[in-house]
This record gives sequence, C-alpha cells and structure tokens, in this order.
Amino acid sequence: MSTIASRLAALRAELAAQGLAGFAVPLTDEHMSEYVGEYAQRLAWISGFGGSAGSAVVMGTHAAMFTDGRYTVQVRSQVPGDVFSYEDVPKTSPAQWLGEHAQAGQRIGYDPWLHTAAWAKQAAAQLTARAAELVAVTRNPIDAVWADRPAPSLAPLEVHDLPFAGRAHCGKRAEVAAWLAEKGADVVVIAALDSIAWLLNIRGRDVARTPVALAFAIAHKDGSVDLFTALEKITPAVLAHLGADVRCQPRDGFQAALKAMAGKTVVVDPQSCVAAIFEALTAGGARIIEARDPTVLPRAVKNPVEIAGTIAAHVRDGAALTRFLAWFDGEAPKGELDELSAAERLRQFRAETNSLEDLSFDTISAAGPNAALPHYRVSTETNLPIRNDSIYLVDSGGQYRDGTTDVTRTLVVGTPTPEMQDRFTRVLKGHIALARAIFPAGTKGVQLDALARQHLWAAGLDYNHGTGHGVGSYLSVHEGPQRIAAAWSAQPGNDEPLQPGMILSNEPGYYKRGEYGIRIENLMLVETLHADGAERAIMGFKELTLAPIDRRLVDVGLLTADERGWWNAYHARVATEIGPLLVDAGEQAWLEQACAPL
Amino acid sequence: MSTIASRLAALRAELAAQGLAGFAVPLTDEHMSEYVGEYAQRLAWISGFGGSAGSAVVMGTHAAMFTDGRYTVQVRSQVPGDVFSYEDVPKTSPAQWLGEHAQAGQRIGYDPWLHTAAWAKQAAAQLTARAAELVAVTRNPIDAVWADRPAPSLAPLEVHDLPFAGRAHCGKRAEVAAWLAEKGADVVVIAALDSIAWLLNIRGRDVARTPVALAFAIAHKDGSVDLFTALEKITPAVLAHLGADVRCQPRDGFQAALKAMAGKTVVVDPQSCVAAIFEALTAGGARIIEARDPTVLPRAVKNPVEIAGTIAAHVRDGAALTRFLAWFDGEAPKGELDELSAAERLRQFRAETNSLEDLSFDTISAAGPNAALPHYRVSTETNLPIRNDSIYLVDSGGQYRDGTTDVTRTLVVGTPTPEMQDRFTRVLKGHIALARAIFPAGTKGVQLDALARQHLWAAGLDYNHGTGHGVGSYLSVHEGPQRIAAAWSAQPGNDEPLQPGMILSNEPGYYKRGEYGIRIENLMLVETLHADGAERAIMGFKELTLAPIDRRLVDVGLLTADERGWWNAYHARVATEIGPLLVDAGEQAWLEQACAPL
Repeated sequence: MSTIASRLAALRAELAAQGLAGFAVPLTDEHMSEYVGEYAQRLAWISGFGGSAGSAVVMGTHAAMFTDGRYTVQVRSQVPGDVFSYEDVPKTSPAQWLGEHAQAGQRIGYDPWLHTAAWAKQAAAQLTARAAELVAVTRNPIDAVWADRPAPSLAPLEVHDLPFAGRAHCGKRAEVAAWLAEKGADVVVIAALDSIAWLLNIRGRDVARTPVALAFAIAHKDGSVDLFTALEKITPAVLAHLGADVRCQPRDGFQAALKAMAGKTVVVDPQSCVAAIFEALTAGGARIIEARDPTVLPRAVKNPVEIAGTIAAHVRDGAALTRFLAWFDGEAPKGELDELSAAERLRQFRAETNSLEDLSFDTISAAGPNAALPHYRVSTETNLPIRNDSIYLVDSGGQYRDGTTDVTRTLVVGTPTPEMQDRFTRVLKGHIALARAIFPAGTKGVQLDALARQHLWAAGLDYNHGTGHGVGSYLSVHEGPQRIAAAWSAQPGNDEPLQPGMILSNEPGYYKRGEYGIRIENLMLVETLHADGAERAIMGFKELTLAPIDRRLVDVGLLTADERGWWNAYHARVATEIGPLLVDAGEQAWLEQACAPL
Repeated sequence: MSTIASRLAALRAELAAQGLAGFAVPLTDEHMSEYVGEYAQRLAWISGFGGSAGSAVVMGTHAAMFTDGRYTVQVRSQVPGDVFSYEDVPKTSPAQWLGEHAQAGQRIGYDPWLHTAAWAKQAAAQLTARAAELVAVTRNPIDAVWADRPAPSLAPLEVHDLPFAGRAHCGKRAEVAAWLAEKGADVVVIAALDSIAWLLNIRGRDVARTPVALAFAIAHKDGSVDLFTALEKITPAVLAHLGADVRCQPRDGFQAALKAMAGKTVVVDPQSCVAAIFEALTAGGARIIEARDPTVLPRAVKNPVEIAGTIAAHVRDGAALTRFLAWFDGEAPKGELDELSAAERLRQFRAETNSLEDLSFDTISAAGPNAALPHYRVSTETNLPIRNDSIYLVDSGGQYRDGTTDVTRTLVVGTPTPEMQDRFTRVLKGHIALARAIFPAGTKGVQLDALARQHLWAAGLDYNHGTGHGVGSYLSVHEGPQRIAAAWSAQPGNDEPLQPGMILSNEPGYYKRGEYGIRIENLMLVETLHADGAERAIMGFKELTLAPIDRRLVDVGLLTADERGWWNAYHARVATEIGPLLVDAGEQAWLEQACAPL
C-alpha cells in the first residue's frame, strides 16, 4: 500500500470513529492565507499534491481531488489516481460534488477553522438537499492521524519599525478606532496575517516566503488591541515595541475571547475570518457586522517611507537580477544549465545583496515547454535542461526589509523563431500600453485590463490569468484589494478604484502548450500625474522594477514610435540606476549593450 | 397664479380628497418606457419640465423636482422655483427625500402602474422608518384633475413582416416557449413595448420617435400569446398576420388575466414589469419567477435580414446626412442659420429619401455653448444662431422600415482654435481605437470603454456619459442589454458579453461648459473576425454609419499612421458607398474633397 493509501486508510478509520461519512480538506489555514505553514499542509499530506491551490473530499470509498486549470497536469503526476478521482474547478466545486455523492443520513465533517462561513453555508445547503448533514468537527481528523505533523512555528516576532513602516502603530490603531466609531461598532476581529503585521508593525517567520507571524487580533474602539499568539514568540524588544495598549495573550485564548463578547457590536470580514469565528461570536451573543477588514485599504496605499523603501529594494533587486541575466547570457549557450541550477544561481545573486530576508515566492524557473505552464514550480522531477534555440522564463522575487519584489523576464537562448518574436512583441506592446496608461481617479482595474491584451486579441490570442496584482511592503507578494483583470476573472479586486500609492504588477503573457511561454512582468507604482489644462485628477504608473528586457525577442518593426520611445526611456533608466551598482566590468559591458537604444 | 401653480393646487385638492399627504410623479408609462406617449406626460403637465428623465414628489406644502446633472440648467428655466424645490439625483433620490419629509401617520400615494416593485419597496421602507405609509392609488390623482389629458393613442398596429424582420413570429414564439419549458414555467409576462413589437413582428405609432404600439403580452408555454391592446388598433391585415395563436384581447383585460393565474408559474422581468403586475399576480395566487425578458437578448442579436436592412438604412441615411453636411458648409458661413433651421433642413434631407418613417429621437442641433450640453434639445427659447469661428454639433437619426440610425457629427464654421482641434483629435483617436478594437468572445463593454477615453485621460479630460448603447431594428434608438461605459456608470449593460450581430454606438465626446462641445458618433455592428493562427474566437466592429467626419477639426500631427490609415479607409468607403446616391454635382464634388486622404 502506498503512503497516500495508508494515510487515507488511517483517516477513514478516524472518520468512522468520529461518526463521519466524509471530510473536506482545504489548502489554507485559520487565517485564510494563500501560503500556509508546514503544520497546515494537510492537503499535501493526505494527497501528495504540491500545488498552491486545491482541495479534497474524502468519503468512505471515494476520494476526490479538486484543482483548477493550472494544475491539470501536475495533479495527475502527484496524486495517485487509484485512490483519488480528479475534479476540475470551477466546473465542479467540492460543495457540488458533496451534494452529488453524499447519501441520506450521512454526516460530512469540516473543520470550521479552515473554511469561510460562506463555504459552510453553501456546502450545508447542498447536503441538506440530499438529506445529509454538514458537521463542524471539534478535532481535525487529519491532525488526529498525522503522527509527525509539525507544530506551528514558534519563530519570534520581529519589529518592523518606522524606518521601514513609515507610520507608528499607535496612529494606525487610532485610525481603526475612528473607523469603528463611525460604524457604531465596539471591536473588529482581524484574522489575516498580513493585516495584523501591518497594523502592529511586526513581522514574523512562521510561513515560508511571507514574513508574517501566526496570530489573531481584536482591535477595540479605544485604540487598544488584543494580540493572540504563542507567547514564546514575544521577545522583550517586541514587547517594548507593542507597548501597553497592545495586550499579548495566548493564541488559544482567542476563541474564549470571541465568546465573551455578549452584547458587543463586532465587525468581521467574511473574506478572511473563518466560520469558527462567526460561530464563536454568535454563540457568545455578539452582534456581527460584516465589513472589509479596515486595514486592507490603508495597507495597499503605501506611505512615502514605504514608497522610498520599495524603490530602493527594486534597484537592489534589479541589480541582482541584471547580474543573473548577464551570467545567464554567458552560461546558457554552453548547454549545461537546467531550471534548478539557474534558479539557485539567481537566489545567490539576490543573497549577495546581503539584504535578502527570503524569496517572495518559489521561483518559477521554466525552460521550453515548462514555460507554457503559467504557475509552474520547478522540482527535481520536472527539472529540464535549458537548451539552445529555446525560451527560458524566470518569475521570481525577493523579500527585503524595505520592500517586496516580483519580476518576470523571458529570455532566448540562441535564435528565436519568428513566431516567438511575434508573440513576445505582442505581449510587450500590451505591457507598454498598460505601463503608459493615464486615467482619472475612480478608475478600476477591469477598465485597464484590455490595454494589456489588445495586441494579442488582434491575433486571436490571449492569456488565462490576471494582468496585475497588488504587492505588499515586506509582506505578501499577492496583496489586495486592487487588481487588474478581465471581466471574466473570478478573483476579487477588479472593482477596487486604483489610488496613488498602490503597487500593481503588469504581467501580460502568452503560452503555447508543449512549446514555450512568455511573460513580461514589472511592478508599478500608481502616481498622481499633472497635465497642463487638466480638468480631472489623473494618475499613471511609475515602473518600480528595473532590469533589461530581452531585446533579441523583439520584432522592432511591430513597435510604434511611442512604444520604441517607452522601451528606450525605460532602458536608459535601467542603465542609469542599475549601472552604478555593478562592480564587474563584464557585467557593466553587458548592461550597456542590453540597454542600448532599439 | 401661474398655470403650474394652479395645476398643483388642483392636484393637492384631489390628494386631500383621496386622503393622501403626497404623491410621487415619475416620467414613464405602464411599460417602463424611456420615451412615453402624450397621455403619460404627467410630469411635464404638473411641473413644466421638458427633459427626458426626471420625477417629482408633491406634498401638501412642498413639491420637489428630481433631475440629474444633465438637466441642472434646464430644470431651473422650465420648472417654477417658487412652487418646486430642485433636487439632484443620485445625490437625493425621491424615496430618500420622502423619508426625510414625510411625517408620522401620513399616507403617500404612488401609481403602481408607473413604478417598479423595487422602487415601491425602497420608498415603503423609507416611509415606514418615519411611521408613514406608501399607498398604491387606484385612480391616478393627476389624471383626475388633468381635464384635457390626451387619450392614449389608438393608431393602428402595423405589420413588420419577413422582408424586414427576417424571422416569422411563430419561430420567435416557439423559442420563448422552449425557454419557458427550460425554466419550468407556464407563462411569461412581457410589458416592454419593443419586446412585444419584436416578438410579434408588429410596429405602431403610439409613441413619438419609437415605432411601438401600446400593449401588454402574455406568452404561454404552448407558443401562443395573449396580446392586450385597444382592439380599435387591430386592422384586418394585422389580424391575419398574427394568426390564431396570438389572441387579441382588450387592453383593460390585462389585469384580470394576471389575477386569473392561480397556481401558474409566471416569469416576470422586474426591470420592465411595473409593481401593479406583481401585485395582480400575487393577489391571484400565481408563483412568480423573476428573470430577464426572454426576448431581450435575441432582439439585440440581429439576424442576417435585419443586418442587411440596417446596412441599407445607414447608406440611405448617410447620403441624406452627407447632403446636409455639404449644404451646411455652403450656408453656415453666410451667418443666417440657427439651430432650428439647421435641424429642419436635416429633417428634410432625410424625408427626401422617401423612406423616413420618423426621426429616431429629437435632433440635438447645438451651436457654440449649447453643444457643451450633451443632452441638449433645441427649442424656440434656446435657439442660437450658428456663428462664424464656432462649433456646431448635430446628433440625429432616422427611423426607416429596415433600420434605425443615430449619428453625431461636429462641424466647424470658419476657423477652429488649436484647443478645439486638440480636443477633437483626442475624441477622434478614442473613436478610432474603439472602432478598431478586436476582442475575444465573452468580452463585456466595461472592458472596452477605456479605449475610447484614453487620449482624453492622458490630458486630464473625460466625458460624463457612456461610450456606446445598443440600437434596435426599426425600434428603440436606445436598446439593451449591451452597453459600453465606464465602471462608474449607473446604467445597466456593462456586464453583458458582446456578441456578433449586436449594434452599438461609438460616441466619445468632450464638453467645455459655456464654450463648445464635441462628439463623434457612428453605429457599429459586432462581427466575427478571422485571423490566421487564432486560438480564440475573436470579434470586431464594422462601421454602419457612413458620412464624412470634419477634417478641418483634425490635428493630423497627433494621429499615428494606423489612425490615419483608419481615417482614410473609412472615408474611402464613405466616398464609394455614398457617392453613387448623390445626384447633384456640387454635392458630389463636396463629398470628394471631404473624403480625400488625410
């Protein structure tokens, strides 16, 4: 029996013991995080799945694995098909599948700390229609049988103070208190880890790639905050930083605190607060107001110190990436590189800045056909050599104290085909159109998305992902609420008006299955612009990312004069800002030719 | 006492007699029409307001008039300020105002045949909060005191048969029946006049500018239809056309028919069916399903015969407009034209086609500062002379049996200022960008809107109206469900995926208050496109409107080569298609120079 099969057998025995006919296994944690700590990797443990989005349902004899189009191939290679069936979302959702497979009288379990209330409501409705029942478990049955499950990280909290944060946490807390007063509410429950980190100017090392600490927070209308976290994580420096108005409490006191809010008016964000939080508040007699976490918007709108920090981080990161690009150009034609070795060399260049705290996500280092998978993650099983006359795509980023980076470059080794050049140039023209966009206050991402796609659309081409996501300040590399995406996108954010101080990625792409993939990604800062005679407040983007784009992939004849002007001005800036950071004469010479006018 | 004051006094006496403390007066009819017949012009009668959108509330001592930004000036000139206060929507809605002004115990009347159920629900909630009550009247109190109120039109129905409609009404009815079967419903109530006209291939002359007939319809799952209309309107030809499966019934039997649907499942569109329809169905014991009128989408997607018809109508209409443009160029510099005489001459050119059934809306004939009002309607009070060195804007259209047109041209008399040329060219560049857009299936209007605004945005400019609306086939000049507008637009339609066969206007503009206005409007047809190597189904626009755009307003230096290419190709098409319809040598010569390459 395979490892997965034996784990499934153990889980099924535990389900039987708990009187459950099935159990839903999501890939998230108690904070609805996108990336989760080792202790919460229950889906990977029970199924073998290593992707970043998916879920499973385990029933007595069936088990089903739910993934979206990004993981169609990967799920089949990692999750054994003899014990799991493969289901595609959004075509079939776990709730729907439950509705179709549960039998009358069955009790299906879910962990209320790992699902939103909306999920539980929908799943319960599907089950009720089959005369079955959705049951909140009090002990997660996977945890009961996962003998060597890692404990949640106890890494110390770290102070993220004024030179990086730009604002003291007492001011942020006062702003939340004023917001509570306006809402007529007493407290707000904050469960999102990056919200807590931003509010209190703290960071942590509990989750790989995202510098957050496992905690819950309850902010009060008097400006004070209860911070629920493992007390082992609180150092004297952190305690001094937090001060008397932030009360550190043991993490396992959080539920009791929710239950003790009888008569209070409590704001809860249904996007980031799990069902168990609603249940505890309701059980305790609190009055619940649903509203967006009040730290989400101020966190997204970077302050001047954060902006100066992210600019500095991007120059530093751009120099490291430029060194990699120069190195790659010399090494790749020798035919000895592969995806893993290239990604490791890039990590080293970043580490050599002496400022790298972590990567901001697992590097997408993708050669040839692997580049056609937009969310590819390299592993020893999939590692491909980087061949001549092919395309190599590298999407990577770093976590620095002063900023988070995320950049994609697509490189050719040898000679590109005319089709590769045509596709690359269409992606580039869209990238430039979005980078050059000027738009009035109130404009939402959905209004700008077509600018990035128009030249692909004209040839009957497109890409199946968003065009731009928000990015944190030494925080999550995917940060809401803003987003630039097509109207068909299921992810939220398209409706958020863009504001000066927001950071967005600009990453159109093109993917040809089995052959190659292209993506050009820079981060951009939304800025106020001035125009003589302007009748409206207008905004535009300033490029944060600084690194050459591969000129050998450009069909210059397809560019307009304005587009060539953008290219030349951007590369002149790259040469001016990155050049002084390079000490090696070979790297300097490489940069000069890479940034020469087109 | 003014006429308005005496009418208000009479209404207040009637309200007192009905035990009402106030009454809501909308500008619509029993079909939620945008344009309404004379009999339904209650708002104009009680207030003097002549705009196309607004409403009023009359209380015992107060009366308030509600209009949006388009009518800020006009409402103050037409509605006496001593008896009405002026309120701005959406800042203050009538329901909100009622909530603020009604007193405990008061009964406020509304005519349930003139409001949606959603309006009534919202107003009732506002009043209940004040311990007041919203009351449906059984006799409209304005009708009770409006002694010489015109009777609803009894104009005969007209057959709109296969050579124009392209599909027999039995096929359309069968499609609705199949839709009902899929919904598990018995009947659908259709109240929108253009829906009824489309479904049964009939037209009418009951409403100025829109060739519809006053009627209600109930379509059954067996494919038959009950048509409720004044029986005097049914000619033998119409009776023969409708056949046995369309049962003509007196219009005043409609309510009783709704009440007789006990136990039936009835589909009702809350957008076009008034509150009284819901009330009658509920009172009669029907089960209501709310859904969009099933004729809306097939009506918007024109069939090949309708497409051929609209193309022919646009060539004919374009020739009439071209003759006007040539005439205007000769006459305007003499300094004797004014807005009224120009509009009348344009009407004559259209009438000389011998195919004009009506204008499709009241012509916007606007000189100088009047052109800065996007929804200006010329009248004897506002009529301005057309002066030298100024801009004249004309937005007009015709109703032809084979199609409905809508076109705006902005003309300069004498010499434009550099600013006028700059603004005109930015509007033109946006018009061209939208006209040239290519996009995949599923794209919604909100995704394309920025293409039309981008060059205005870049200078801090914009326009406060939508970019594109649907247009009917010898029907409404404003027809849903599709629309192209900014994300801030309150009107629905932005979320409707565009489909081949839909017609949309393309009408970006620029308005400088007190000085001039610019708008360039063509109608366009959504078409399937083909591209070698395309991986997605793609669509684009074909220009339907054919008439020269004023080259003297273009700053050619601001155009890209592609934009100049579009201009030249468009005008070459205009010359080729319109030229042969001109018989006067002077007109032919004018067209030739107007269409010469830029």
